[in-house]
Amino acid sequence: VGINDYTRLNGEHIKDLQKLIGDSNVALDEEKREAYSYDEVARTYWEEDYLAEVVLFPETSAHVSSILKYAYDNYIPVTPRGAGTGLSGGAIPVEGGIVISFEKMNRIIEVDQKNLSITVEPGVVTAEITRAAREVDLFYAGDPCSGDASFIGGNVSENAGGNKVVKYGATGASVMALEVVLADGSVHWFGGKRRKDVTGYDLVHLFVGSEGTLGVITKIILKLVPLPGKVVDLLVPFPDSETAIDFVPRIIIEGKVIPSSIEFIDHNSLILAERYLNNTLPYDDAGAHLIIELEGSDPERLADEYERIGDLCMENGALEVFVADNRTMRDKLWKARKCIAEAIMAFYPRYSLEDIVVPTDKIPELLKGTEMICEKYGLKSPNFGHVGDGNVHVNLLFEEEPANWRQILYAALDDLYKLTYGLGGTLSGEHGIGLKRKKNTPLVLDEKIIEITKKIKSVFDPRNILNPGKIVP
Amino acid sequence: VGINDYTRLNGEHIKDLQKLIGDSNVALDEEKREAYSYDEVARTYWEEDYLAEVVLFPETSAHVSSILKYAYDNYIPVTPRGAGTGLSGGAIPVEGGIVISFEKMNRIIEVDQKNLSITVEPGVVTAEITRAAREVDLFYAGDPCSGDASFIGGNVSENAGGNKVVKYGATGASVMALEVVLADGSVHWFGGKRRKDVTGYDLVHLFVGSEGTLGVITKIILKLVPLPGKVVDLLVPFPDSETAIDFVPRIIIEGKVIPSSIEFIDHNSLILAERYLNNTLPYDDAGAHLIIELEGSDPERLADEYERIGDLCMENGALEVFVADNRTMRDKLWKARKCIAEAIMAFYPRYSLEDIVVPTDKIPELLKGTEMICEKYGLKSPNFGHVGDGNVHVNLLFEEEPANWRQILYAALDDLYKLTYGLGGTLSGEHGIGLKRKKNTPLVLDEKIIEITKKIKSVFDPRNILNPGKIVP
Repeated sequence: VGINDYTRLNGEHIKDLQKLIGDSNVALDEEKREAYSYDEVARTYWEEDYLAEVVLFPETSAHVSSILKYAYDNYIPVTPRGAGTGLSGGAIPVEGGIVISFEKMNRIIEVDQKNLSITVEPGVVTAEITRAAREVDLFYAGDPCSGDASFIGGNVSENAGGNKVVKYGATGASVMALEVVLADGSVHWFGGKRRKDVTGYDLVHLFVGSEGTLGVITKIILKLVPLPGKVVDLLVPFPDSETAIDFVPRIIIEGKVIPSSIEFIDHNSLILAERYLNNTLPYDDAGAHLIIELEGSDPERLADEYERIGDLCMENGALEVFVADNRTMRDKLWKARKCIAEAIMAFYPRYSLEDIVVPTDKIPELLKGTEMICEKYGLKSPNFGHVGDGNVHVNLLFEEEPANWRQILYAALDDLYKLTYGLGGTLSGEHGIGLKRKKNTPLVLDEKIIEITKKIKSVFDPRNILNPGKIVP
Repeated sequence: VGINDYTRLNGEHIKDLQKLIGDSNVALDEEKREAYSYDEVARTYWEEDYLAEVVLFPETSAHVSSILKYAYDNYIPVTPRGAGTGLSGGAIPVEGGIVISFEKMNRIIEVDQKNLSITVEPGVVTAEITRAAREVDLFYAGDPCSGDASFIGGNVSENAGGNKVVKYGATGASVMALEVVLADGSVHWFGGKRRKDVTGYDLVHLFVGSEGTLGVITKIILKLVPLPGKVVDLLVPFPDSETAIDFVPRIIIEGKVIPSSIEFIDHNSLILAERYLNNTLPYDDAGAHLIIELEGSDPERLADEYERIGDLCMENGALEVFVADNRTMRDKLWKARKCIAEAIMAFYPRYSLEDIVVPTDKIPELLKGTEMICEKYGLKSPNFGHVGDGNVHVNLLFEEEPANWRQILYAALDDLYKLTYGLGGTLSGEHGIGLKRKKNTPLVLDEKIIEITKKIKSVFDPRNILNPGKIVP
């Protein structure tokens, strides 16, 4: 259906929805509707305005089921929304209609030590899961930079990555099962408390990363792993990005370890972090820094290991190795790493935070190409990210703001995506396609794959009511 | 299309196929066609006979493409086949037609140290991948028991598990990208050399485990990890299965380590292995044994670790801890573990090797329930498997062979699957549904999920030519 075929909500619909889930769970005032119509992509990025017609706050799976049944019967678009920390416009209600916020579905249902799993509702804040697991001496490995605010439902729907993917995989690697409300309102479990399952197609991981376009997730069972006894971070300055990147596979091959994080911060990003935090970090004139995080159950063994990896760094062109082995130092380091996106948002009114991913060995070429794009369009680019998995947050900023900045930015992004594709990479590693990049998917997905994508969408959502206008044009 | 709608091959078709891929790549003699029409499910298990009309041996993706285009245009069923080590009848050509064997597409195309990946054709033997990775000091973690014979294409198509899933995940966890020939003969890459990708739906992992029903895989890019410097196996006898199983999560929680394997062998299975190998293993009167495998880069540290885990075993009811820290002892141990399925096949003419998976803490209940089923039907059940991920190979054997043995076996399997489902488990963890279990999928997948499965199948394969008659009824 096209936009004109959707039902616009009237007073009757609102009354029906209030009856279904209770008056206090239905928000109509414009301020709230606006607040729930955007994510962390700068509002100025969009050429149009978007506005939900109503925001709903279901408390149970049964509420979600009744909302979807109603929306399905009445051709009303439904956009599920986590904490709004997304960076692709995935939760923007492009076609108006209903936004479902999960903030009232925020229960941790069960921590199951015997089966090393935790069952949660989608509105639980990611960091709460880590905390609940820690209480029984277990660990939830999802660690997006926005983990103190983001909801796990959003993490699953975007297959969020973060700082520990190189060792533990992205969010999907921890997902064992999902309760999903399908477009017609029917409620189904996919998967179960099991670490293996080849009974039919892997629909669990088809839902993961599908941005709410195939169904609405109402419960999640996640894997837990052993709680690392001790964690140490190495901050390692290098003369330039290339030397730093070249070293990354050697950590794994010669160091014979998969660090829990291998993060990259280029010079521009480090300066931004320092300015934002009003703080300094060592060797801030270096071309690039790596953060290498190591975990272990035994402090002495871990000390051996970080010395070994430290030596390897120095043999491979590092300028120095700083060891952060206590909580205060580690927090300072990660604060610097995690604040860069915020710093960009604070200092630059016009920017785009990107999420491209390339084969790791192509990162130096990517950075060089990005420099040329910036020269061409008069932009600046601080780059940082998860170099252990090829996912670099290349970011484009305007130092000054030309009148046609939006067109310039769109053109620069087109160039950046083409560069990425040419290097064997793709548009997004962890932020999603959402609304922001959907016009670019034909660059990286061929016609047939886009056709398959649309057909799969229509298998699950024949009336196209679930988060319409996302992923593919 | 139903069976009567498929085209039966005549001389013209055979000539066309010979023209497309060369005379020497087309096999017509009945002996060969029969040999390529079964896998390792006992032939006697089936009530009917199956026979390919022709077996094709393509040498390139272009060959596969031309075969599929031809089959698509002419409504000919196509069943892709690995090494035939499957245990679910997944490679049986239920509707006749073409069987594609990948034994001539067995090249290792590239080992890419910088991106920690390996690119292979589907006909490469699994163990060859491990060997090629080892040459550049890296490790491929897939380790199915049949790895010395199985093809990687089959492993991907069934999402094979094996002995290292508890630490490294099943085959799919290592798959970064696939070249797939779709039903119409078009060739597409899904994914790339990247460890993260949220650009569109995760079609890569929809193909994984789809048993050749959605497309034919012609190239595979796999992740590699650090080569473990040193490996030690502990063989740990327990008085009974329950004590052994109860201990499993403690290894991870209290031991603060994810072993690379946690395998389970019950008393019946151990005796079978001893008889088959004409060898003895220590404590063969114990109720159950665990094999716990630990890896480390440093021998001294690893020795600390296995002593710590050994102590934990003894504190949790183990009768003894035997350490296999050299190649000879480890090989002996794994030979015993890996031969059990072969031993069953050798000693019992009538049996079913099963692959159910339940939440780990439900394994003792599963074993008790299995005992009751065996009593009811006059069967014997040696049980073993990958207890670290809840996947137990419960096996049903006839000590004697009643005339109606097949009906008894089918009825016992129905009971076993119901028991499994009641415990929160499912039909298959790693062997697949294939032909063998497709009639049972409605027990564990609800009507709507089966409908979705069929519709997804028809998105990829509208003429139902790809491995028809598998997964769902």
